[in-house]
Amino acid sequence: MSIAWGPDDTSAFQPVAGGVTLADGFEAAGVVSGVKESGRPDLALVTSRGDTVAAVVTTTNRVKAPACTLAASHAADGRAHAVIVNAGNANVCTENADRDARAVTDAVASELDIEGQDVLPMSTGVIGVPLPVDKIIAALPALVADLAADGGPRAAEAMLTTDTRVKQAAVSVTDPSGRRYAVGGMAKGVGMIEPNMATMLAVITTDAGVSPATLRDALTIATNKTFNRITVDADMSTSDTVVVLANGHACPDADPGTLTAAVHAVCADLARQIVADGEGASRVAAVHVGGANNESDAEALARSVARSLLVRAAIHGADPNWGRILMALGKAGVSFDPREVTVRCAGTTVCRAGVGVPFDRAAVADAMRADEITIEIDLGGGDAHATVLTCDLSPDYVRFNAEYTT
Amino acid sequence: MSIAWGPDDTSAFQPVAGGVTLADGFEAAGVVSGVKESGRPDLALVTSRGDTVAAVVTTTNRVKAPACTLAASHAADGRAHAVIVNAGNANVCTENADRDARAVTDAVASELDIEGQDVLPMSTGVIGVPLPVDKIIAALPALVADLAADGGPRAAEAMLTTDTRVKQAAVSVTDPSGRRYAVGGMAKGVGMIEPNMATMLAVITTDAGVSPATLRDALTIATNKTFNRITVDADMSTSDTVVVLANGHACPDADPGTLTAAVHAVCADLARQIVADGEGASRVAAVHVGGANNESDAEALARSVARSLLVRAAIHGADPNWGRILMALGKAGVSFDPREVTVRCAGTTVCRAGVGVPFDRAAVADAMRADEITIEIDLGGGDAHATVLTCDLSPDYVRFNAEYTT
Repeated sequence: MSIAWGPDDTSAFQPVAGGVTLADGFEAAGVVSGVKESGRPDLALVTSRGDTVAAVVTTTNRVKAPACTLAASHAADGRAHAVIVNAGNANVCTENADRDARAVTDAVASELDIEGQDVLPMSTGVIGVPLPVDKIIAALPALVADLAADGGPRAAEAMLTTDTRVKQAAVSVTDPSGRRYAVGGMAKGVGMIEPNMATMLAVITTDAGVSPATLRDALTIATNKTFNRITVDADMSTSDTVVVLANGHACPDADPGTLTAAVHAVCADLARQIVADGEGASRVAAVHVGGANNESDAEALARSVARSLLVRAAIHGADPNWGRILMALGKAGVSFDPREVTVRCAGTTVCRAGVGVPFDRAAVADAMRADEITIEIDLGGGDAHATVLTCDLSPDYVRFNAEYTT
Repeated sequence: MSIAWGPDDTSAFQPVAGGVTLADGFEAAGVVSGVKESGRPDLALVTSRGDTVAAVVTTTNRVKAPACTLAASHAADGRAHAVIVNAGNANVCTENADRDARAVTDAVASELDIEGQDVLPMSTGVIGVPLPVDKIIAALPALVADLAADGGPRAAEAMLTTDTRVKQAAVSVTDPSGRRYAVGGMAKGVGMIEPNMATMLAVITTDAGVSPATLRDALTIATNKTFNRITVDADMSTSDTVVVLANGHACPDADPGTLTAAVHAVCADLARQIVADGEGASRVAAVHVGGANNESDAEALARSVARSLLVRAAIHGADPNWGRILMALGKAGVSFDPREVTVRCAGTTVCRAGVGVPFDRAAVADAMRADEITIEIDLGGGDAHATVLTCDLSPDYVRFNAEYTT
């Protein structure tokens, strides 16, 4: 992607293959519990050896799954040892959802011989259907037996719902002290069961050592600039959760700035993969707004363009329809001068000073048929900027979410 | 529709056939100017005889068509004699859009032998393409010759873009004084040229007599409860405009409350027709939120549900997917207790106290296949309520707005 997506300074690390078990001391597993009727893997576990710092962010939806509340509460002391993820059932809006979430974390703790407080739960899938707790508990011995230092890909697969592919990302980091450590993660993107609602989950691990406060700050910065700047359908899940675990095995006193950038880079990569695998998506568009007076204006304008159904339909049609982009900027409720706006679609200027300029429409349409395209908007004001990733809106999105066998 | 949509008290009037020329003293016309390449009617005119009070509301989009600015400015004195509407070109985001809008209103004024200040312009269609002013001016003599007291349907047709049908509504009103008058209107809904962006235009006429301040208040109340409570794709046009003209021929000193309710009723009918004719729409859904602490909370929650792509896709699939409805309530940023929420889809309770209840899924799905359905949400709190109309999201919406011949 030609637009920066991730931290500004990437000099201290490089992308490598791997996921949640790349960092030293982490093991993962993924098995079939039977929650998914398809019989595909649906139960994942990530564990860390030794004292492990943890940070969690969860959805701000007022209808919030008990797993979110419990994960946040269990990580409130800044420590955790395990993350248990079930796919196929979001365990929300049922009579006993709270009790069921607690039953699962208690059973996992007992199986691992740790405290229930040290287990962070995640649930994704259908809303309003009682969680089959018995199936999950019955599968725990096999899940724990499957734990291994190469189990990352199995866990990444077991957390998926209707995602079409596994999402992993990792970087190898060189601390200013010269020590090396890893940051790796896995995520699931928007998906449905039956179908139901979109959920985004991610687990990041590192063998760097940091304080709980530093890890929380790193996660907040990273999620605000990555997972919170993607949109597939503007619908906020009741289960969104990102967890990061740091066990310090490789680099006990890691430099906070470097670690923050590395977590940011891994989250950026996972977030891009989630958008690319959005329901019905055929391409990713990075909507970049520059020349703004402050970053929050830039983000609001980029988000308004990235959310617009008409803009997203035009992206699907590889149509450099800049009029819709101006419309979406104008409705964002942010002050700017339309006569100063420049728009570039897939690298070509199509609008300058708020009016159209001649361009080779066929050539721009061709460029817009790429897997990843850019929409660059310059407001002609200050230096602030922000990028929001979106995907095209296709008839498949609607078909997928409308067809339901009653 | 079983949910109230329109004013509470409708005892003073009844729906009748008709449009902008039902009220006495109004004439209308519609002709082909050639702005639309299809050769279909694309130029409409509405005139009023004698002293006429006018009120206008236009889009709040910061990228605003000169026609909106000019109409608001020309109606600032509370008077107008004519409304000129061209379809096929929105006359916005071009070098000379301001000058072109003024050239049209001046030419219409000259043709009608009135002041330019008394002509209110409306333009709808493609963005960023220079308005073919010459074609419009050349068609004005024929347009004025076409003016007639039965010209309402011709004007209503000439203002359409990709709308599939003409939208008119009218009521016959009995003033408390015993005098009778009419309120009639026409509108165009979301539509595209080429395709481009959605626009909503409406012209309402009445032979009641009211002060400019009363007419402005009536229009504000009516639009806030009708046109501002519909959503097709959450994209706000740069051209949205509603004009109401009152010439006092039938009822010089009309009761303000009765007139306001009658204007409200006509706007409610036109707004419903716009949603029903939304891009790709196969059904209208009235999302009603009751039991709220105040109307603004109720409106925000109803709007969040009505805008949700996942809810709208479920409506397309006749799927009583109440989990998506709770999700959309939860993301609205409004405080409420999820454990107090009741949801009824097409008349059947599907969720009570925030959890699912058993229901006959096939029967509810059948009921949801009607042309107009209701989604009723009770928050279990106060007495405030609000209704927002939306339509289903179909693959056709995306197909229509993505397919573009470059």
